[in-house]
Amino acid sequence: MATPVGIVGFRGYSGVELVSILLKHPHVEPVLLEHRESDDKPGPLGHPGPRRAAMSPAAVHAEGLVAVFLATPAEVSMELTLPLLETGAKVIDLSGAFRLGTVENYKRWYKEDHHHPELLAEAAYGLPEFCRSRIPASRLISNPGCYPTAANLAIKPLIEAGVVQREAGIVCDAKSGVSGAGRKPSIKTSFCEVTENFSAYSVLDHRHVPEVLRTAGLEESEFSFTAQLIPIDRGILETIYFRAKNIGSAEDLLAIYQKAYADEPFVRLYPARHAPDLRCVARTNFCDIGVYYDAKTGRAVVISAIDNLVKGAAGQAVQNMNLALGYPETAGLL
Amino acid sequence: MATPVGIVGFRGYSGVELVSILLKHPHVEPVLLEHRESDDKPGPLGHPGPRRAAMSPAAVHAEGLVAVFLATPAEVSMELTLPLLETGAKVIDLSGAFRLGTVENYKRWYKEDHHHPELLAEAAYGLPEFCRSRIPASRLISNPGCYPTAANLAIKPLIEAGVVQREAGIVCDAKSGVSGAGRKPSIKTSFCEVTENFSAYSVLDHRHVPEVLRTAGLEESEFSFTAQLIPIDRGILETIYFRAKNIGSAEDLLAIYQKAYADEPFVRLYPARHAPDLRCVARTNFCDIGVYYDAKTGRAVVISAIDNLVKGAAGQAVQNMNLALGYPETAGLL
Amino acid sequence: MATPVGIVGFRGYSGVELVSILLKHPHVEPVLLEHRESDDKPGPLGHPGPRRAAMSPAAVHAEGLVAVFLATPAEVSMELTLPLLETGAKVIDLSGAFRLGTVENYKRWYKEDHHHPELLAEAAYGLPEFCRSRIPASRLISNPGCYPTAANLAIKPLIEAGVVQREAGIVCDAKSGVSGAGRKPSIKTSFCEVTENFSAYSVLDHRHVPEVLRTAGLEESEFSFTAQLIPIDRGILETIYFRAKNIGSAEDLLAIYQKAYADEPFVRLYPARHAPDLRCVARTNFCDIGVYYDAKTGRAVVISAIDNLVKGAAGQAVQNMNLALGYPETAGLL
Amino acid sequence: MATPVGIVGFRGYSGVELVSILLKHPHVEPVLLEHRESDDKPGPLGHPGPRRAAMSPAAVHAEGLVAVFLATPAEVSMELTLPLLETGAKVIDLSGAFRLGTVENYKRWYKEDHHHPELLAEAAYGLPEFCRSRIPASRLISNPGCYPTAANLAIKPLIEAGVVQREAGIVCDAKSGVSGAGRKPSIKTSFCEVTENFSAYSVLDHRHVPEVLRTAGLEESEFSFTAQLIPIDRGILETIYFRAKNIGSAEDLLAIYQKAYADEPFVRLYPARHAPDLRCVARTNFCDIGVYYDAKTGRAVVISAIDNLVKGAAGQAVQNMNLALGYPETAGLL
Repeated sequence: MATPVGIVGFRGYSGVELVSILLKHPHVEPVLLEHRESDDKPGPLGHPGPRRAAMSPAAVHAEGLVAVFLATPAEVSMELTLPLLETGAKVIDLSGAFRLGTVENYKRWYKEDHHHPELLAEAAYGLPEFCRSRIPASRLISNPGCYPTAANLAIKPLIEAGVVQREAGIVCDAKSGVSGAGRKPSIKTSFCEVTENFSAYSVLDHRHVPEVLRTAGLEESEFSFTAQLIPIDRGILETIYFRAKNIGSAEDLLAIYQKAYADEPFVRLYPARHAPDLRCVARTNFCDIGVYYDAKTGRAVVISAIDNLVKGAAGQAVQNMNLALGYPETAGLL
Repeated sequence: MATPVGIVGFRGYSGVELVSILLKHPHVEPVLLEHRESDDKPGPLGHPGPRRAAMSPAAVHAEGLVAVFLATPAEVSMELTLPLLETGAKVIDLSGAFRLGTVENYKRWYKEDHHHPELLAEAAYGLPEFCRSRIPASRLISNPGCYPTAANLAIKPLIEAGVVQREAGIVCDAKSGVSGAGRKPSIKTSFCEVTENFSAYSVLDHRHVPEVLRTAGLEESEFSFTAQLIPIDRGILETIYFRAKNIGSAEDLLAIYQKAYADEPFVRLYPARHAPDLRCVARTNFCDIGVYYDAKTGRAVVISAIDNLVKGAAGQAVQNMNLALGYPETAGLL
Repeated sequence: MATPVGIVGFRGYSGVELVSILLKHPHVEPVLLEHRESDDKPGPLGHPGPRRAAMSPAAVHAEGLVAVFLATPAEVSMELTLPLLETGAKVIDLSGAFRLGTVENYKRWYKEDHHHPELLAEAAYGLPEFCRSRIPASRLISNPGCYPTAANLAIKPLIEAGVVQREAGIVCDAKSGVSGAGRKPSIKTSFCEVTENFSAYSVLDHRHVPEVLRTAGLEESEFSFTAQLIPIDRGILETIYFRAKNIGSAEDLLAIYQKAYADEPFVRLYPARHAPDLRCVARTNFCDIGVYYDAKTGRAVVISAIDNLVKGAAGQAVQNMNLALGYPETAGLL
Repeated sequence: MATPVGIVGFRGYSGVELVSILLKHPHVEPVLLEHRESDDKPGPLGHPGPRRAAMSPAAVHAEGLVAVFLATPAEVSMELTLPLLETGAKVIDLSGAFRLGTVENYKRWYKEDHHHPELLAEAAYGLPEFCRSRIPASRLISNPGCYPTAANLAIKPLIEAGVVQREAGIVCDAKSGVSGAGRKPSIKTSFCEVTENFSAYSVLDHRHVPEVLRTAGLEESEFSFTAQLIPIDRGILETIYFRAKNIGSAEDLLAIYQKAYADEPFVRLYPARHAPDLRCVARTNFCDIGVYYDAKTGRAVVISAIDNLVKGAAGQAVQNMNLALGYPETAGLL
């Protein structure tokens, strides 16, 4: 019998993806927790969709939810988390509310005070490839940002292997589909503004940057990041540039990743000099990586691709849930 | 009365754009030169379009063409140019046939022998903002590549102003609409492969790189370039990263461009920390530039945007024609 | 010297198109009339754009505006028109405020009372191909809806020629780009909802229907209309089905249009059995028409294509202005 | 243990979809049958994909294939089928080779002679909702065309219920994503020709028409069909117009479908006056239907939506395989 888990924010793009993944999960079933008034359009007759309940600690008890996903904005997640934790349910938060470790960092990048510093300190950062050990015992898991997921999976093994000339800096040129901006209507995500267009935003100033610095172990001066909007629904592709040392070929670069990810089910590596693209990761929990290196000059390029709604949000959240609840890590994700 | 000018390759995307611009030009009128058999679909009744003739030196004489545009592949342009020049017409070639200066460079990047080294040496590089003086007296003008146009307009003023820490390298992450790949059907440009996708190609190995090195005065080791396909029709956006020196603010960066382009009609500058996008240059001959700088760490980003078919091809070709034939440089382009 | 004309609603998609057309017009120049607070993003330095003034009768006097375009919602146009007319300026309204002839009709289709029945009666319907004679003497011109423009140009000649079996009905299956829905952010026009989608709306109940009935002279029971959203920026294509009588071939159908539009500069006809598409009319004031007929069964199809922002809005408004102010009808539009 | 089934044509869009569905099927596993030389790009390391074999009767024996899918062009399917049947495997053909029943019909619509009239007569038409009974005992199943699947599911219940005024005709305005045109590169499906465009083809003359006439029981004079290309990857939406009789409301129309499809797992009905769209069927085997009716005039509209690659091709082929091999009809499809 399937174990019920709750979802707050099930109408947003990450929330819809989460429900869709959980409906196919072999061990759990989703319960939609209503947090605001419904404006749902009627769907087909006789297909009512998952169970629903009001979002409240009482309902979490009554429904027997062992975990609750928050696919809500940071300021909403910040307030909902404590009451939910007090029910005994684990909380997996997809927002930035608990990602940055310190109130100072939160204040700087999110331009707001953090109301729950104690939870900020307690939260486990849910990037399983690097933080797997802390997740099972944590009652609060902070799911990583979409850009940092693709960036850290590409950069951290390089830093650890000592092949980056750090004084020259790492450039991460990131491109995302529009679903990354959320479902709330806005002129910036209106069809006619986005189609046949391409634009940068938050240049050198994106709130996802500190997640990369913290996880990959970089100084701010070593990392240049630009976010850009592709006129597509979903997907993140990051083109990462650095000057390499201590390697002789693209195959050497590849070998670093092969060693780092030998046992990882969700990182796929391409042969040297072959690039992943967004189609190859769409609707999957994979992060695909391709490597390039010019031996004559030491210039290197690594390309990292994920589906921002899956490995960049809902899929990774389910991966974390699997770890937190003791299911096989890949359950419902392959 | 309008002066006739010829176009070979008028069915490709650059060729169609060229015809469209020339039809509105106040001083010239296009004559379409048939070079291969027609597969044209019927257009509306009673709207026959521009005059047509067979592509031949005799027709160039008979039609009184004072200039001929070649919107053909490099290997075709290479063979057509000499016979055309011998008619006395000026030739403006939109291909890569005559861009690289030496047969060695051509052989390396285009993987073929060059059959007309004498023309390679003679050709004027048609980037008016930097090479304006040579154009009027040249009988052969080599129109720049689309990527190098956006790159050189952004990078060359920085190099000349001495504000780039060259040892750290310049990264140019370039994105192009699909029309840049030409009109010939290919699985790579098929709708279903491109839509909802984003992919890199020619990573660290694009044949447009030597045009940037040559014009901006960079060493190969100093310049990392990746080309990428955006699922849109037209437009190139390049995000350029470097470590700056000798400046204190984004405004200082902006001032360099303001000085360099004070009298240039086709370069537009955005206020510091404001990025151009592809909509703002679509169907124009403008190159739009925006600047970012982090004073604390010295990291800088410059964003450069053009329409690949206009400033990156047909529009710049007309700009060159205007210079070559003595018309106002902006005629037909504003 | 150019004559100044005003534009209210210059930030919407029709308004932007209107300004763009007027900037290239040989006889007039646009003056932007601010009607609400500006949220404009900074554009390139040194390119300030057209002159601006506050929207007020006093400013219309002060600026010497001989005509004012209203690219505003119907309820705004309804209130702005009278004060503007009292300045002596002609008003060309792009909304539905004055299209339907009677208050009853307006009430039924726009679900609101009409506050200026006297203007409703006075307004000239601005479809020049059929209503040209009334326009020069009118001080208020009501620009047609985008769907009815494409529909009436295709249907009215058929009705007048008596070749439609009216008892079987005419079906008009209409598809529009997203700009037709306006610039106001909405979940319905959000990129992620529209891309890779296609959907119908206002089935059998679109407020543009009465414009077709009135102009083409059809009964409601004779005309079935569905509007649908294509994931593109601009363009309307209508596929029109009917059972024909009194003709023997597609060429006979074509001949009806050739006679009706012999002197019309903005209607283009395709050879029989060749369909126009949206690319062929994009950014033009043309309506392109193609015809099909199956002689064995009498089934006929006519395809009509326009750019919804040009012939369907701003271009036709300028065509009307040309007629109203005595300029050549095609000025600024070819 | 999974039963092996073969796929010829696994690189086309239907073939890729088929492999993807079969990989998740609980009872079978796909074996890719190479029919021409491979041009496959390298995929991620260590993810080799399904088993492969040469396409030959010997391999069908050796691999123990109990069924073979042909996702090949009609002329290829026509030649491959007999040798495959002689191995004892069932053949499920996704092409038009065996859909039309008679050699005369094939010759008229496919403009070629049919080389295997005996198979044409033998093939079962694989539209389970109407032809379920013949499928289990057939060794050759002809999978329906994409357009006829959406059309017949919408139209046949209406004809059977006697609510269509047939003398006025039925109009089916059909729109398809580009994947319906196949994967072979062509100017018609090149990105730059399709994006920001919309166009009709095969007006009144599409080879899918006879499948609708045959299945729904219509005369050619009663059915007008236009196919149109939407700039999206996948999905078919058909807007169907007719004059109704013997009903009083949209709810009456809906009731006809509710009765017809009470036990059908893959047809979903929307509440009256609510339209399905392509997002709601993307990557599913559902056909969604919505109904509209104007009681005053008798005009009716039915909207039918499928994913052309799933219910319109690969999904329906698997549904047929389930019936042919005795698995639950929905296995692998929900």
